[in-house]
Amino acid sequence: MRPPLQFELRQPLFQRVFEHMLKRLAQGEWQAHDKLPSVRHLAEELEIHRLTVFRAYKMLCETGKVYVKDKSGYYVSPPRMITEQEQSKDLLTQEQLQVGNLLMESPIISKSLTVNAFSDIQRIPVNYQFSQALIDPGLLPNLYLSDYVKKVFDLYPKLMGTYSSVQGDEELRIMLSHHFQEKMELQLSADELLITSGAQQAIHLVAEMLLGPMDAVLIERPTYSVAMDIFRRKGARLLPVDISTDGYNLNHVEVLMNKYKPRLFYINPTYQNPTGFTVPSWQRKHLVELAERYNCMIIEDDPFRDIYFDNKPPLPLFTYDTFGKVIYINSFSKYIAPGLRICAVACREPFIKHLISAKSLADNGSPLLNQKIFVHYYTSPRLQQHLGKLRIALQIHKEIAEAQLTAAGWQFTSPQGGLNLWAKLPEGLTAQELHSAALGHSISFVPGHLFDPLGKLDSWLRLSYSFTNEVVLRDGVERLIHLAKRLQDEHR
Amino acid sequence: MRPPLQFELRQPLFQRVFEHMLKRLAQGEWQAHDKLPSVRHLAEELEIHRLTVFRAYKMLCETGKVYVKDKSGYYVSPPRMITEQEQSKDLLTQEQLQVGNLLMESPIISKSLTVNAFSDIQRIPVNYQFSQALIDPGLLPNLYLSDYVKKVFDLYPKLMGTYSSVQGDEELRIMLSHHFQEKMELQLSADELLITSGAQQAIHLVAEMLLGPMDAVLIERPTYSVAMDIFRRKGARLLPVDISTDGYNLNHVEVLMNKYKPRLFYINPTYQNPTGFTVPSWQRKHLVELAERYNCMIIEDDPFRDIYFDNKPPLPLFTYDTFGKVIYINSFSKYIAPGLRICAVACREPFIKHLISAKSLADNGSPLLNQKIFVHYYTSPRLQQHLGKLRIALQIHKEIAEAQLTAAGWQFTSPQGGLNLWAKLPEGLTAQELHSAALGHSISFVPGHLFDPLGKLDSWLRLSYSFTNEVVLRDGVERLIHLAKRLQDEHR
Repeated sequence: MRPPLQFELRQPLFQRVFEHMLKRLAQGEWQAHDKLPSVRHLAEELEIHRLTVFRAYKMLCETGKVYVKDKSGYYVSPPRMITEQEQSKDLLTQEQLQVGNLLMESPIISKSLTVNAFSDIQRIPVNYQFSQALIDPGLLPNLYLSDYVKKVFDLYPKLMGTYSSVQGDEELRIMLSHHFQEKMELQLSADELLITSGAQQAIHLVAEMLLGPMDAVLIERPTYSVAMDIFRRKGARLLPVDISTDGYNLNHVEVLMNKYKPRLFYINPTYQNPTGFTVPSWQRKHLVELAERYNCMIIEDDPFRDIYFDNKPPLPLFTYDTFGKVIYINSFSKYIAPGLRICAVACREPFIKHLISAKSLADNGSPLLNQKIFVHYYTSPRLQQHLGKLRIALQIHKEIAEAQLTAAGWQFTSPQGGLNLWAKLPEGLTAQELHSAALGHSISFVPGHLFDPLGKLDSWLRLSYSFTNEVVLRDGVERLIHLAKRLQDEHR
Repeated sequence: MRPPLQFELRQPLFQRVFEHMLKRLAQGEWQAHDKLPSVRHLAEELEIHRLTVFRAYKMLCETGKVYVKDKSGYYVSPPRMITEQEQSKDLLTQEQLQVGNLLMESPIISKSLTVNAFSDIQRIPVNYQFSQALIDPGLLPNLYLSDYVKKVFDLYPKLMGTYSSVQGDEELRIMLSHHFQEKMELQLSADELLITSGAQQAIHLVAEMLLGPMDAVLIERPTYSVAMDIFRRKGARLLPVDISTDGYNLNHVEVLMNKYKPRLFYINPTYQNPTGFTVPSWQRKHLVELAERYNCMIIEDDPFRDIYFDNKPPLPLFTYDTFGKVIYINSFSKYIAPGLRICAVACREPFIKHLISAKSLADNGSPLLNQKIFVHYYTSPRLQQHLGKLRIALQIHKEIAEAQLTAAGWQFTSPQGGLNLWAKLPEGLTAQELHSAALGHSISFVPGHLFDPLGKLDSWLRLSYSFTNEVVLRDGVERLIHLAKRLQDEHR
């Protein structure tokens, strides 16, 4: 078994020099067969010891980037045949990986594949907007919140002149620690909470803290694509774990943990995005044990917990975590106030200290105004009223869309909470094809392959029923179903 | 000369495997003389091609981390004598570097040296607070701002339910582009602006975009220490450029640019933190030419521009930049509303696109509420009134402190704007010694060595005159001078 995780690693100097030269070579500072600066010259340029440069040059030779000519010095290797062979081997390998349920991609490639595709889709203005897992601003408590803002300014007249602490406003953290203790029946101090600007910043900070090149990361398949991009940017390898209506195959998870020793498992176990699936309690308990046994941190991203329909969801994994292996991310952006970007991260020592340090360098603390507005609204009885109304409204939305899809014979599993339906298209249609056609009718949704670390699942789509009102929803889903039918008929 | 900068670099797979194994070795997964997994075994574990593992293992041998025994496999090298020798060589080298005006440090070491020391000092509660370069909240337009908040909610009733775009609210960016065009007499479109959460996030995003291991970065000496920490975390080498009342020695800057090919130069040329010095116009023009000639980006951090005392400061370098080499950071946090954390970054294509992409992964956009409050306050005539009052108040503060220090015979150069006095202690005293003693009298300031990339300048200190009111300021500076005198007498 692995020793406790280390958070930072000092890279040896010669290796930094090696990387430095690799970059300059990649940037074309020298061409093929150009002579590189001599060891003495580069040592002078970088003001380091000549032996250090010598070791870096040896590594460059070793890796085929550079060759030595007699005793005259170091020269840039030409783009070799062998490189192409190696590349095609890499491609083959990647193909194998995909079949073998393991993905390894360049952070750059994955970025252009997903981040842009995903946000591009959401940016297209359409009349029937089902690609945004956001709540119709008309359903949010805007006027109530304005009142709280005024109250907040009366309470803290110097609010605008004050920075928050890096960790987040103490009043807010104390309030949230009580709130979490009550909801989850556990001990949690205000010191074990960090306030971030949205869940995405929280995921980004955890990745910065824990991930290095080639580190294995378990992710759900399908999953929220921006998390994938963040991990890939760190050079991590993504290992998909299928999520179904029954949760995970924990035997498979254990095999992966045992074999690949992943640093972390990123999960969204409650009304998962995009599927709406919820992982049962017994699996949550067991997963925490596996995390401890295999020394794998769990990021539990839990933004939809309060948007349940008939019954409350199972308790978070964090509740069962007696080992400090779960980092619990609870964003309140979705259903209270996206304009505030308030998210709380709960985790134990020593992780919380490192997270705060990463937050300190990233932006030195979230704005205080937003935290103070939030604390006063969150503790009010109005929040409960708002949530009650919101649950009913979203359940009605969901039922409208489900009734239409059922009538049309589409397959889906009815979610018990959240904002999304994950539906399978009728035979012979791909989501990308339907999406292209739908845009022509001013309808948008997100094709399933964008949630898939393997880039497949192209007969699935995510339909968010939360962003439009009932009339637009009904009309738009009707049009989408007709369009799919027409395309299907054309194929015949 | 170097070709245009590249922003991202795909690391070859074998090199990622090499780094991955280095990390596992550093974490002690195997002990000295332990056998490593065979090439076949590791290839299976990582699901990559065996040749890739083979190349990574060759690099491990080459770097002395691993040795081969006959044909039986790869083994972990013991901590060798030569490593210690090399380490002591590294130390020597570092010593030489410091003498040679070049610093190269582990990001980890520097972090514990500065970030914590700096923020620890500011966190100590004292009655005479001269360590914070912040404005007394009593001098900020809190009540005015509360009015604008109410106005903003009337204008945008659904504000709290809406996310901002990643780049920042369009209304705000259009307003700021007009504002900058007018102030700087240049063309600037709203597309060339990014809104960030404070200047620190902006610096962090630029570093993420531009810096890799061993990249050279020019910084002012002394400079704002958190910027140093951000660059060091990226593995960059810091090259100090002295700043004096006359600005920089541009011949020296050119020598450094020519010799080290730095990626960027981080400057704060107007009422610099901590010195209060201002770089003259002719140097600004010349520096932009040097940046173009040596392909070195300039980060111009300009938070104090509007806090001038008698005359307006010279125009920003960005004004003279026709090549797209200057990234202009204008934070409004300091003197309008720290609670809002609004900062604007102006730069040209292609940098602006890459910055937006980095912001997208980091937090997906700053909160909209803050941007809307800011836009309405910033365009109001009240802002001008506020600024006029603030300038007078701060000038009075400055003059109070200066009169006392002059009477006591301390050396300093009178700043023409900003929040800080950079003063030299009387003979025979170090700022650290005085600081320890001052804390016992509930007085705080920042010792000069914390602003120095070389960790020296220990007979200097930064005294921020902005955070306390006149009475406390006068009283505290008086006490500090007496204390210094007493310590000095004790030494005799």
